[in-house]
This record gives sequence, C-alpha cells and structure tokens, in this order.
Amino acid sequence: MKAVTGPAGPDGAHPVTGLDEVVHQRVRLGILAITREARRVEFGYLRTQLELTAGNLSKHLSVLEEAGLIEVEKGYEGRRGRTWITLTPTGDTALSEEIGRLKQLIARVETTDTPEDR
Amino acid sequence: MKAVTGPAGPDGAHPVTGLDEVVHQRVRLGILAITREARRVEFGYLRTQLELTAGNLSKHLSVLEEAGLIEVEKGYEGRRGRTWITLTPTGDTALSEEIGRLKQLIARVETTDTPEDR
Repeated sequence: MKAVTGPAGPDGAHPVTGLDEVVHQRVRLGILAITREARRVEFGYLRTQLELTAGNLSKHLSVLEEAGLIEVEKGYEGRRGRTWITLTPTGDTALSEEIGRLKQLIARVETTDTPEDR
Repeated sequence: MKAVTGPAGPDGAHPVTGLDEVVHQRVRLGILAITREARRVEFGYLRTQLELTAGNLSKHLSVLEEAGLIEVEKGYEGRRGRTWITLTPTGDTALSEEIGRLKQLIARVETTDTPEDR
C-alpha cells in the first residue's frame, strides 16, 4: 500500500537511488568539478577552494583515485613538492552522470512544488 | 599561488562549500524530496522508494529529526503501527537552499565545459 504516488523513474525508484555516493559526497563532488574546470589542478588550490585540511582532502582524493576517477601525480615546481590531480575519462563520465541525475532530481522537486509552497 | 583560476562565489570558495552535508547526503536528500512531494509520507513508502533497509532509513530519519528538518509521528492505520514523516518549514527551506546550490554548481560545471570535453 502506498501512502502517495508521484512521478518515478522507469523502475519506480526515486532518482536519488541512482546517485553514486563516491561522486555525490559534497567534497568529492567539488574535487571532480574543480578538476574538470582546471584539467590539471594542484593540491593546495583544491584545499583553498574547498576550505579543507590537507588530511581531509587527502582522504577524499584517495577514495576518488581508488575508484579510478582521478589520477594523482607527485612532482616538483622549482624545489617545492607539488601534487597534481587530473580527471580520468571515467571520472569525467561519472561527473556528467551525477549532473544528469541532479537535474532529474531538481526537475522532480520543482514539478511537485505548488504555489502555496512558496 | 594558484595553479588555475576560475569563476568563484563571492568569497572565492567553490559552490560546494555552501552545501549542508545533513541535507546533501544522498539518502537524506531523497527523504526530504519525497516528503515535500507527499507532504506526509509513511515509513514503508520511503523505504521502498529509496531501496533501504529499515535500520538505515531510521538512522537517516534521526539525523533529519535532530536537525529539525522533519517531524516523525507514530500512529496506527487500523491495527497496524505506522510511522509518518512530515517536512518542517525549516526542512522545506533547507531543501530549497540545497536545490539552489545544486543549480549554481551545475551552472558552473556546464559553463566550464568546452566542445572538446564531450
């Protein structure tokens, strides 16, 4: 018995069930978005943009690297050690899928808004 | 020193820094979206729509209830115990803010797409 019915995906489940938590998590979504913008981004820039500690950023980068969504490369800029992050093709696709799902979700939330809600 | 520059929010931080993890988390975002659609939604319906175990759903409902975003009410439908969930005005506002932030994020990701990305 259903309390309510509403527009649903092809399998009847809600659009959020299609979101991948590896990609959807707030910090990781930010890493992927910034890395796509920049193509190749330096660790310190990500840290500043996302307002994170180095430890927290490293943890999320490891999750994304293990999932094959980014590549992490250590090198030097002059004498200073630098860590560079690039998006893999898999990561690019995963970000596009996340954006597509978010649009579905937004469309669904806004479809069910009625004037008295606002 | 910045490796790259790009469009940023008023404070220079990325739009994801404005996302609230209580609301953004995949399951909780689903609970809030479905509850807004339905106005008052039964536990079992949420569980089916979100493809969750009862324990997992309960855990996320507690987080939302403690944050004042939903109200949880236990009652009966005939002889069967039922749990009903409604969105509070704070929860409604929080969901609207999340949707607004997601739109900013999507706009930013799509602005930085160039034809050779696709």
